[in-house]
Amino acid sequence: MDRVAIIGASMTQFGKREAWVRGLLAQAGRECLADADVAPDDVEHLYVSNMASGEFEGQTGVPNALAHDLGALPAYTQRVDQTSASGGAGIYAAWQSVASGASEMTLLVGGEKMTHRSTAEATDVIASLTHPVEYKHGVTLPSFAGLTARRYLHEYDAPRESLAKVAVKNHKNGLDNPHAQFRKEVDLETVMDSPIVADPLRLYDFCPITDGSAALLFCPESVAEDHVPEDEYTVVAGIGGATDTHVVHERDDPTVMGGAVESSEQAYEMADRSPDDVDVAELHDMFTILEFLQSEAVGFFEQGEGWKAVEEGVTDRDGDLPINTSGGLKSKGHPLGASGIAQAYELHQQLLGNAGPRQVEAEVGLACNVGGFGNCVTTTILEDA
Amino acid sequence: MDRVAIIGASMTQFGKREAWVRGLLAQAGRECLADADVAPDDVEHLYVSNMASGEFEGQTGVPNALAHDLGALPAYTQRVDQTSASGGAGIYAAWQSVASGASEMTLLVGGEKMTHRSTAEATDVIASLTHPVEYKHGVTLPSFAGLTARRYLHEYDAPRESLAKVAVKNHKNGLDNPHAQFRKEVDLETVMDSPIVADPLRLYDFCPITDGSAALLFCPESVAEDHVPEDEYTVVAGIGGATDTHVVHERDDPTVMGGAVESSEQAYEMADRSPDDVDVAELHDMFTILEFLQSEAVGFFEQGEGWKAVEEGVTDRDGDLPINTSGGLKSKGHPLGASGIAQAYELHQQLLGNAGPRQVEAEVGLACNVGGFGNCVTTTILEDA
Repeated sequence: MDRVAIIGASMTQFGKREAWVRGLLAQAGRECLADADVAPDDVEHLYVSNMASGEFEGQTGVPNALAHDLGALPAYTQRVDQTSASGGAGIYAAWQSVASGASEMTLLVGGEKMTHRSTAEATDVIASLTHPVEYKHGVTLPSFAGLTARRYLHEYDAPRESLAKVAVKNHKNGLDNPHAQFRKEVDLETVMDSPIVADPLRLYDFCPITDGSAALLFCPESVAEDHVPEDEYTVVAGIGGATDTHVVHERDDPTVMGGAVESSEQAYEMADRSPDDVDVAELHDMFTILEFLQSEAVGFFEQGEGWKAVEEGVTDRDGDLPINTSGGLKSKGHPLGASGIAQAYELHQQLLGNAGPRQVEAEVGLACNVGGFGNCVTTTILEDA
Repeated sequence: MDRVAIIGASMTQFGKREAWVRGLLAQAGRECLADADVAPDDVEHLYVSNMASGEFEGQTGVPNALAHDLGALPAYTQRVDQTSASGGAGIYAAWQSVASGASEMTLLVGGEKMTHRSTAEATDVIASLTHPVEYKHGVTLPSFAGLTARRYLHEYDAPRESLAKVAVKNHKNGLDNPHAQFRKEVDLETVMDSPIVADPLRLYDFCPITDGSAALLFCPESVAEDHVPEDEYTVVAGIGGATDTHVVHERDDPTVMGGAVESSEQAYEMADRSPDDVDVAELHDMFTILEFLQSEAVGFFEQGEGWKAVEEGVTDRDGDLPINTSGGLKSKGHPLGASGIAQAYELHQQLLGNAGPRQVEAEVGLACNVGGFGNCVTTTILEDA
């Protein structure tokens, strides 16, 4: 079968932005089309990854507005929502649109505008994805992160500092990412002394509230070279998605992210790859603990050993398996609908050798995008064409 | 290529329901799986068509909750939102998931819970899909309907009564639909004398606010007979989707639904069919005027002639081209995310000969699902296998 190629990619500045989501999406969409030198009216399908423009801004119907703003009418449009994993779900939708033959040119744009709301308000919108009983007990996603981190540290004799080292590493990477929300290094002491949010996790264990957008342009590999030179595109070698229990306490072991296990197995099988083949990865480090859990769930490390990889520098930019060279959600920011797409943007740049000071040697990249507290996960494997 | 089959279908009672959207979706999902005798854990992909559970109920992440409720873990899940056309967009997403090879068993469930909010509140949520400038001027969808109806009547010398006859016809059909919200006939006088909402349209020209859910089960045609007998499934022969301008006043002619023209052309081409081949149709009669506009846009009648077909009884249940045998949105109700799926449910029953007192003779059916005021449209052609 003809593989699905990614021939264009873009992301806006992440952080506090003045534009509404519609403006952010239009910026990323235009820049993505320009990256591949594709005209807007060549777009056949347009997918928009966004969790909550209605709740955040009182604006729905954004895909239609975007089709207009880009000059892409009468392209078919649809919003893809899978909470924090909306970006990865958008990649899956875009892949399906091309692989099914429904579209020969699919633009995926994801974004969220959140910073005009307070952290409490934004957290409340996000918490609306939890079970009503969890929610009524005040168990928001940061609470789950605290509970799970404590369990992980206890179960696997991991030092508290190992979590902090995820933040230190990802901030260091973000320093070299011009699109990142936070471009500043933090030292271990700063993380360890930051205010407690959900014991044992502290402020620097959490990603920020962020505005931003990112985009990818997909077409069949057979026509990719009509648009870009032979070595300037990547392919979706593998992709998969899966759910875990909606209620977190129903899981046998909260330190195992079942959705990441299942979705990565699907992606490896489709790509005919194993974890050993992956050269660079973007994991959904909404909370530092999640980087450990995913690095184990997708098979990079044995269960309970992810923390050692961070301690030993394996996941540093110059380590054997660099993780979150973009700075991750931790430093780059987490505009819900954009995050999964921005992960793929980073892999695309790394695989094409366009990552500048963040560049690592890589032919195979993996992105893991998580919704809820692992409630839904997509895993994507990109390869250099 | 292997065609995509629909092997199961269900819809809940439409109307005022006590259950929240999660409960409605679970009911339709379970009944759909039972219809095809497929076990929940055979579901590989689960798509949920829903416009606004966050705005209506403060609950997001519904696809994950539904995967749990149905016992379908770890099926991949995703929400499909395309405002009022979310159901049709869900059919397109489900079709793509099977046609791309990503899933061999895809469950699509759509629904909305709205009646706990006042009509004004519900209309306000729906109006959030319009352009902010339109919205600030108070131009909600019913306003567009009034303006367009006046233009249509003027342009094509159509009598006001012709619009009312759409309501009379669809209420008559709904009388025989046990799932319909309104099962009562209305006469021409009642419609013509009902209170003005958006001149010249009156209360009976509008569909109601509705709770409800509907579901469809998709698989490759090559495996359909592993689950159901040879004559007990339908196939998606053609499907397409398109957008029109986000701002209605930018259209050259507001009486032409460009998205319906474009999406139906795509569907006819894929199905290798023409409008003449269609035996029965479900059109998105959110307002009576929309039945005229779509019946012309999908090519059943010449522009400006749709009203004559209603006057002449062509679209009656015993006419040459029955339209909205289900009762349409007008009588059956319009729970946003469910509506497009309920249209396909009706066609599925008609094509399989299971429509009871509503049965017409049909081998090819067409459904047109509209979001906004024609901002986005999907057209689906189903055929008896």
